[in-house]
Amino acid sequence: MWMEINFESETPIYTQLVQAVMKGIAAGELKAGDALPSVRSLAGDLGVNMLTVNKAYQQLKQEGFITIHRKKGAIIESAEARAASEGQLQRMAEKMYPIMLESICRGLTLEDFQRLSATVYHQISIEKE
Amino acid sequence: MWMEINFESETPIYTQLVQAVMKGIAAGELKAGDALPSVRSLAGDLGVNMLTVNKAYQQLKQEGFITIHRKKGAIIESAEARAASEGQLQRMAEKMYPIMLESICRGLTLEDFQRLSATVYHQISIEKE
Repeated sequence: MWMEINFESETPIYTQLVQAVMKGIAAGELKAGDALPSVRSLAGDLGVNMLTVNKAYQQLKQEGFITIHRKKGAIIESAEARAASEGQLQRMAEKMYPIMLESICRGLTLEDFQRLSATVYHQISIEKE
Repeated sequence: MWMEINFESETPIYTQLVQAVMKGIAAGELKAGDALPSVRSLAGDLGVNMLTVNKAYQQLKQEGFITIHRKKGAIIESAEARAASEGQLQRMAEKMYPIMLESICRGLTLEDFQRLSATVYHQISIEKE
């Protein structure tokens, strides 16, 4: 099972599901064209509400990470379809803003911040192997 | 007035207050030892609830950005007191994780991510001038 839910976490379950799929994509375990489990079967396997899984799939669709076929179900999008648009880059910069603000207030230089981001990047890359 | 609240924003007002103070610190407008307005006067000036301002001040205190004196009120902490601890660096890495995950899923390399973070950094630095 590639998906684990932490029911004790402060992170909402649907967000954990979204991130688990993104982790699968980032790690190359989920490739373009791969099908995700049906909402019903994933909800059953994880012991969560079908609405929760549906909410996660809808968000993944909205972000351009999956497409939802009437017959095939949830399918991982191609790298081209997932590629960051100008608007998405802008939103990512907005999400980065509070973290950057905090790092400056805590006396980190841009280089410190980038060293930290390299650590996080390699953490995800190591999970890949 | 160095603080502006966007009442239409999805970001909660107390978070906007926290970020406004952090922006002041990052931009060097608020220096160690500077006093923030009293809860009552800031709430009055901005037209927000005193509880909201209090919540923001409590969070700033908890994050180590201000100290609250019984007489002098809310005072900006020294750079040393604000400096990132190991635990804070760890939490910043955790906050960075979903953004890094998204950037990898969208095909950004570490260098792309770092270029984006440099843009955000310089945006804050330009606001400084």
